[in-house]
Amino acid sequence: MTTHFADRLLAAIETKRSHVVVGLDPDYSLLPPSLREKHEALDYHDDTQRRVEAYREFLFRLLIDLKAEAVAVKPQLAYYEVLGAPGFGLYQELVETARSLGYLVIADAKRGDIGSTAEAYAAAHLEVVGADAITVNPWFGADGLEPFLRRAREAGKGVFVLVKTSNPGSADLQDQELSTGETVYERVADLLAGWAAGGVGASGYSNVGAVVGATHPVQAAKLRLALPGVPFLVPGYGAQGAGATDVAGAFDRAGTGAIVNSSRAVLYAYRTRPGHWAEAARAEAAAMRVALWKAAGRT
Amino acid sequence: MTTHFADRLLAAIETKRSHVVVGLDPDYSLLPPSLREKHEALDYHDDTQRRVEAYREFLFRLLIDLKAEAVAVKPQLAYYEVLGAPGFGLYQELVETARSLGYLVIADAKRGDIGSTAEAYAAAHLEVVGADAITVNPWFGADGLEPFLRRAREAGKGVFVLVKTSNPGSADLQDQELSTGETVYERVADLLAGWAAGGVGASGYSNVGAVVGATHPVQAAKLRLALPGVPFLVPGYGAQGAGATDVAGAFDRAGTGAIVNSSRAVLYAYRTRPGHWAEAARAEAAAMRVALWKAAGRT
Repeated sequence: MTTHFADRLLAAIETKRSHVVVGLDPDYSLLPPSLREKHEALDYHDDTQRRVEAYREFLFRLLIDLKAEAVAVKPQLAYYEVLGAPGFGLYQELVETARSLGYLVIADAKRGDIGSTAEAYAAAHLEVVGADAITVNPWFGADGLEPFLRRAREAGKGVFVLVKTSNPGSADLQDQELSTGETVYERVADLLAGWAAGGVGASGYSNVGAVVGATHPVQAAKLRLALPGVPFLVPGYGAQGAGATDVAGAFDRAGTGAIVNSSRAVLYAYRTRPGHWAEAARAEAAAMRVALWKAAGRT
Repeated sequence: MTTHFADRLLAAIETKRSHVVVGLDPDYSLLPPSLREKHEALDYHDDTQRRVEAYREFLFRLLIDLKAEAVAVKPQLAYYEVLGAPGFGLYQELVETARSLGYLVIADAKRGDIGSTAEAYAAAHLEVVGADAITVNPWFGADGLEPFLRRAREAGKGVFVLVKTSNPGSADLQDQELSTGETVYERVADLLAGWAAGGVGASGYSNVGAVVGATHPVQAAKLRLALPGVPFLVPGYGAQGAGATDVAGAFDRAGTGAIVNSSRAVLYAYRTRPGHWAEAARAEAAAMRVALWKAAGRT
């Protein structure tokens, strides 16, 4: 029996009183020096194995220490692919461990393709690896997204479509005005409303969500009104410069319907907070949880 | 010392008298029955290992038999990710073997992201795995592509940007008309002209290319005129329905500047051609090579 993805997501938000997603973006140069030193002193087959083992220790410890603060974790595939097959193996282990600890797992893969290739990407991340949701790129149009939507629906899983990304360059295509008067990203939002309508769960939310950058607070608030029942995944909090007030517009009137990601600011919080690196990360995630809870209008 | 990607590509076209790219998209259900039966009878740890070993035998044999016909091979990442870490390992082995056999290798990853994440994807496929070029998705805009362009340029490698994809759904976003009168994909082509200008090699071609579907012959011919010096990677030939006359417009006046991909029609040619499956694939690739050479105006 599979429960609807959005129902699980909204229930987790209430249980943990948290909208926090922690992005699992391991970067060797940013690991706590004590951890790096420990692994530099160990005898490994090669540098890839050293990094995989250091990341494993770092991320598994954080998974344990952050579980009361974060509803979801979001491994960013690039940081695992760059380690080749052993990195992909670590990604698989992380997903399994995170799920067993009660996190929802969003595979931040940003895949986009057509037909049997899109089908294979959906199967890879939602079924073989077993993530709860995957981020996808809308550039191919409806027939590119359809295999992701179908397989996710069948498995009780979610798809987050990149609607308006957090980077300044998102203006180059996404903000261009169409002859109809709407922007390209608003066109994606229109298409998304149709895709989402077929997948609404008991919570009133769909398994088809939108990625909307925290760095665009006005657009996020407008998209929230245009897309009721569509869960938002909001990146750009923390290291990319957005704060709790910037994301307030992404929540619905009940103070739910959106989750907010921070990666580096949580993972590497030891750089600005005292104590052990895991405690610094936990304190940073806790502060984010409280700030978002308030920004969502909760008390 | 690294030679410019486009210079290597154009030299390979002349040496092999071929514009053929073979897409390496392994699908277990389409493998030659004799090969499947052989691997079904062997004792493997699990089904993943069985598939990896069957794909290895199939694809390595084809790499050897197709090397006089194809200038490049294009592994489609989805089909390796769906096998998890062992699949990613097979992809790495394939790239290494294909390069040692004299193929250019295009990692069909269609990645798109920003900043350090885009950087990690570029490093993963162009440096760690060692492909000669990678396909990328333009949805994030210029700052998303910049890390791919920079790392490719430094390493003498290439980037192919998805301009107009071969699927019917490409109309949903790519064909939308902007208030300026141009379509969204024409806007991508405009941006691409700027990115490509910085990377022109001795051949007059840039290391920044365009993916333009063979299923859109009129648009391809117009894009060819609008983007001189931009190498085209043309998918959609064969199984997706396009033939040599459909791709004629993608070549420049010298009959070069474009390479054309076929995946299933070559890999699984045993279904329509007599003899051993490897010979059937070779004959299919040879027929494609001759048809494209003629379509390019060569004799």
